[in-house]
Order: sequence, then C-alpha cells, then structure tokens
Amino acid sequence: MNAPFSGRTGPSQPNRIALAQAQAVARGQAPIPLNDSNPTRHGLTLDSLPGVYRAEPRGPIELRLELARFLGQRGTPVDPDDLYLLSSTSQAYSWLMKLLCDAGEAILEPRPGYPLIESIARLECVQALPYQLNYDGSWTIDLAGVRTALDGPDGARIRAIVLINPNNPTGSYLHPQEREALIGLARSRGLAIIADEVFFDYQLDPLPGRRRLAGEEGALTFALDGLSKMLAAPQAKLGWIQVSGPAEQVAQAKARLDLIADDYLPMSQLISQAAPGLLAQASAQSERVRDRCVGNLRYLGQALDGRPISLLRAEGGWNVLLRFPAVIDETELVERLIEGYGYSGQPGYFFDMPSNGYLALSLLPEPQDFRAGLEAIISAVDDLLG
Amino acid sequence: MNAPFSGRTGPSQPNRIALAQAQAVARGQAPIPLNDSNPTRHGLTLDSLPGVYRAEPRGPIELRLELARFLGQRGTPVDPDDLYLLSSTSQAYSWLMKLLCDAGEAILEPRPGYPLIESIARLECVQALPYQLNYDGSWTIDLAGVRTALDGPDGARIRAIVLINPNNPTGSYLHPQEREALIGLARSRGLAIIADEVFFDYQLDPLPGRRRLAGEEGALTFALDGLSKMLAAPQAKLGWIQVSGPAEQVAQAKARLDLIADDYLPMSQLISQAAPGLLAQASAQSERVRDRCVGNLRYLGQALDGRPISLLRAEGGWNVLLRFPAVIDETELVERLIEGYGYSGQPGYFFDMPSNGYLALSLLPEPQDFRAGLEAIISAVDDLLG
Repeated sequence: MNAPFSGRTGPSQPNRIALAQAQAVARGQAPIPLNDSNPTRHGLTLDSLPGVYRAEPRGPIELRLELARFLGQRGTPVDPDDLYLLSSTSQAYSWLMKLLCDAGEAILEPRPGYPLIESIARLECVQALPYQLNYDGSWTIDLAGVRTALDGPDGARIRAIVLINPNNPTGSYLHPQEREALIGLARSRGLAIIADEVFFDYQLDPLPGRRRLAGEEGALTFALDGLSKMLAAPQAKLGWIQVSGPAEQVAQAKARLDLIADDYLPMSQLISQAAPGLLAQASAQSERVRDRCVGNLRYLGQALDGRPISLLRAEGGWNVLLRFPAVIDETELVERLIEGYGYSGQPGYFFDMPSNGYLALSLLPEPQDFRAGLEAIISAVDDLLG
Repeated sequence: MNAPFSGRTGPSQPNRIALAQAQAVARGQAPIPLNDSNPTRHGLTLDSLPGVYRAEPRGPIELRLELARFLGQRGTPVDPDDLYLLSSTSQAYSWLMKLLCDAGEAILEPRPGYPLIESIARLECVQALPYQLNYDGSWTIDLAGVRTALDGPDGARIRAIVLINPNNPTGSYLHPQEREALIGLARSRGLAIIADEVFFDYQLDPLPGRRRLAGEEGALTFALDGLSKMLAAPQAKLGWIQVSGPAEQVAQAKARLDLIADDYLPMSQLISQAAPGLLAQASAQSERVRDRCVGNLRYLGQALDGRPISLLRAEGGWNVLLRFPAVIDETELVERLIEGYGYSGQPGYFFDMPSNGYLALSLLPEPQDFRAGLEAIISAVDDLLG
C-alpha cells in the first residue's frame, strides 16, 4: 500500500537533543526549557485568561476527551488521539491537501458540488478534478467515471477522493454499494478518503444503510465535522478531523499532521472552554434545525404540486434543488427575482449542474419567510413563462 | 510597479447575478438570499451564542473598529478596513504566501531566524531563501547580500521580503537606514514587505529611530501583530494583518486577500467578544512582561561578569543569545544540561547561527527560576571546560 503523503511535511529524524530529552522524560525527569517563550508558565498569565497554556497540536486533551465521549455515543468508541481540533472545515481541507498533495497533484471531488473545495484546492496549489453525480429520481455517483479518472492521464496525480456525506446541494448520502466500491478503490490504489460529514445529522428522508465514514477502517480516512452545522453555530468556529484506517497509514498520517498542526496551533482557550457546554446542546439543537427543514420540505412538496417547478429528491442537509422548465435561463430567473421580488439566489451553474434549469433553495427560513420566498420563485417563473 | 500577486487567487469578474445584486444594494434594496445557509438569521441561534452571525472576511467590523482605535493610539490613525483578523501570525504568513507566491516562488527571510517561517513556506510550496544578519557588537542586515540575492539566479522568483522587527532570537530592531534601503528595494522591484512586529513593544534597550513598519506607505506592506505576544496570551489566538502601501497595490491586495479570508473565515464570536476586554489590558500587561525581561537581563549582565560566557546585545524581545567558548560543542552543552541539570535548550544551529557556540535563553522566567537556570548553564559550561 502506497502512503499518499506529500513532500510538504517531512517527518524529520529526531536530533541528539530531542533524543536526550525523550530519554530524560522516560526517566521521569522532564527537563525545564531554558528557551521557554510561554509566558503563562512564568506567572505572567492575564487574570481574565486563567490557566497555563499548553501547545497541543491536536488541541487540548480535555476537549478531545469530551468530544471523543460525545462522538462515541453514536455507537463506535472514538480515541481522542485520533482527533484534530481546528477552526473550521475549510482549515481541515487545507491541512489535508498539504498532507496529501504536492503542488500540481490532485484530488477528486463531486460535481455537482459546492465551489469552496475547488477554491481551497487552488489556494493549496492542488487541482480539483471532478467526478460526477447523476440524477435519475435519486442521486448516484458515477463509479465508472471515478475509475476512468483514476486510470486516465491524470490518474497518477490523484492523491485523495473527497466524499461529501450528504453532498451539498444534492442532499445525497453515500449508498452502501458506493461506499464499498470507493473504499476498495482507495485501499487498492493508496489513496486517502476525505469525508465531509458536517450535514450527516440532517436526514430529511431516512434511508437504511447510510452510515458515517468517520471511523472507517478499510482505507486511510479523514472525516471532517464541526459545530458550525451540528449546532447551527457558524460563529463558534470549532471543527475537527477524525483519522482512521489501516494502523500503519494512520500512524504515518498523524506524525505528519502533527507537524502541520504544530505550525498553526489554531485552538483558542476561549473556544475550548465553551465547547463542552455547546456539545451538550447538540442533540436538541440538531433536532430543532432538522424539524425546521423537514417542515419546510413538506410544505414545499405540497406547494409545488401542479406547478411547472419540481423538487429534486433530497435525502439530507439544509438545501434542496428546484428544477424549472429549461426554456427559462436560470441566470435570468435570478435577475428577475432580484429586480422584481427582492430575493437573490444561486442557480445550478454555481454548483456545476450539468444543464440549465436549477435553483438552490435553503430549508432553514422560518415557515412564513420560506413561504414568501417560494411564492416569489413561483411568480418569477410564471413571469418568464409568459 | 509590478503587482506581486500569485495565480492562486484570481479576482474573478463579477457575473451577471453579482452585478444585479450590487445594483439592488445600491438602490437600497438588499435582496434576501434564497439559498441562505446561515441558521442564525432564521431564529435558530443557540441561546448560549447570542446574536446573528455575519460572515465578514476581514473579521467583525466592531472588533476592527476597536482594534483600529487601539492601534491608532500609537500615533498614526489606522483604517479598520486595512485590518484582517485571524487566529495567529502563522495563519497570516500562510495567507500572505498564498497571496504573493505561486508554487516554487520564494520569499527572503532573516538568518539567524526562527525556523517556523521556513516550515510554513514548505507547507505553502514556497521556498524560504535566507538573507543574513551579522553581529559585530550589534546586529545589522547584510544589505549587499539582499541585493545579491535579488540580482542572482533566484531573484526573479522572489516575491516578498520578511522583516522581523525585532527579530527572534537576535532581538534586533530594523535600523532606519536598513528600513530605507529595503523599502526602496521592495518598491523598485515590485516586492511586498511582510513585517512581523509581534515583539515590537518589548524594547530592552531603547534606541532612537526604531519604528514599526505597520502603516508604511513606501511599499506594499503587510504588518503582522497579535495578542499572543502583546498580551503574553498565547491561548487567546487573535492575530491581525495591517495592509499599507501605494493605494493601487493596496486595493488589489485587499481584493485578493478578501477571497482568501472568505474561504476560511477564522474569527470566532467567542474570541471577538472577549477581545476588547483583553485589548484594554494590553499596555499594563506589556509593561509587566517587559519589566520581567528587563530585570532578568540586568541580573544576567552582572552574573556573567568575569565568566567565560558572554551576552549578545539584545535590543528587544523575550530572548537573548549567550555565547560560550567554541571549544564546547553546543549540542553537547545542551545534552549536559539535560542529563546533569534537568534543563533543556536550543543551541544556535536551531536558528542557523553561522557558527557553533550559542544558546538561546528566555528572559520570561520568575527571577528565582531565571537565576537557577543560569547557574545550571554556568556549571555545565564549567564542567565541559574541564
């Protein structure tokens, strides 16, 4: 099995001083660093920020223990040492691209999809190559297309497959057969899986067999999650990576990820102090948000009945895709909404939908706001159908 | 004047929808986004995180106003729109390398210097090329060497000069003549200045003419600072970039930096709420830490009198460099400290000192701890001199 790591992090050989230090620690004698530049260890802590700061690359162990306990309640025990805390999923994508890809190497990512990943990849000198999702009443991954990409001229440059579970804006979870095929491909070709599961808890249409990739053992897997979606709290800024897979690959990945994390040390004590209290509210808050989405989705189905607008099946997440007659230019529809109705929106091309005729709609608004927005869409479509 | 921007951020042409939206906003009619995925705008905010979250790439305007007021007290008014808030100076270096350098391009950075910048550069696919500081009773930048590097075979790849003011571990501020020469070079060759001024407030040996680069108008300048050093609060995790320079270059830099910031949005409300209270303590806290450093430095000068260990002149910061007879191997000295005295340390090679015989010493410890550490060094040197 190849290890898909870049040359951006080199696990350096421990030098003589590091070895002597490690031996002293093993003897139970942790040496005092003469070059210590941490003022909180020298009686210089601000009163309003109590405690001694410890630079822990994976994030404070107290919070990782708490988070591991929380995540373990889903069924499978989670080791706090497999967790990396950081400020957002965007930062997690950046760290993983640095870990896995040298400049000019590539990741595979889903289309339709959210354009953020491509933008981050460009910032990381990494190419984002698409694999397709196809819609025929529900969304499925074009597995043959994934294999073609891996066997094609760019195949040797591909270091990871991004799976978004459920994907945005398609709202589709990974099917069990897709999972088996993709894990098999990743394992046999030495690729990593980057699994973005921030919307996992928001099932709109429960289906059997949909499981998180977090904790997957079959291939080197980095599962991303965070409070931004789980708690509907974008202002908290706490995300995490959970590493799993074959033991040897996981050990190598963590040694290198530790070097990246050590350069940035993103976790603020102000966030880690608040996090346990926030996690305690997660299940009630997710349910509250899911109820809102499910309620709006139910209304939407009824309101579109008999209209020239249809709803693509969404299994999970906070958004749905509307399809309207393709005689309407989706850009013109949004211009009409802006100029005539006071609404704006993102048409399908924003997500690389394969053809004209789509609009993304958030399920989050309060029911009366959701209905008003939907009425604007219906009227604007009627206007343009003439 | 060349604009030293990379291809990692392309300021995309505004599309028709963005134009229609901008026109509506100009008419005073901000359209409601139908795809809004911010739950805090839909009555779904957690009680423990009050308020509506706004995604502001540069960081919350309230905090930028507060910070601009604070920074303006130093003499020159600061525009809050020239500030970018983020979680650390490391993150700032990463963003600026993305902004300025394509893969394989380079920055110039000081040696001796702290190895973090080289490590971050490698993570960003950027090469860190050295320029030298020389010591002859005080530290000066080898300006001829900087010119030679810019005119040499790698010169065309260099996009920025990193100035650390004061530098770590040399503790040397930028001299007025050095400043003039380097700003002139940057301006004439279309290079950016990255000015790391996190230790600026910690003058150990006040000298006239040392000024911050923050706000410099002569060349495109990104000044880095943050609470970690200013407040001796590494656990707070609040840093910032202040952009200045020729107006046209500043405008282009900010348009592209906005795109980077928008992909990461690192500022937590938990930090931005606490920050004004922390800033209010900055001047008292800096003074407390500076007093500690100055007191230890004074003791150090007396304690080394007549010893075979000398102190390199330090103008600012939290560290000093000790020089001992070069018949002692600096690595052996640290091994001796670890094994015989319970202390560890960083010898000069860690900072790329040009020769053997140096040890970095922190000025932060409480006086009795500082004295004990120094006694260990003196004894270990005596042991090895035999």
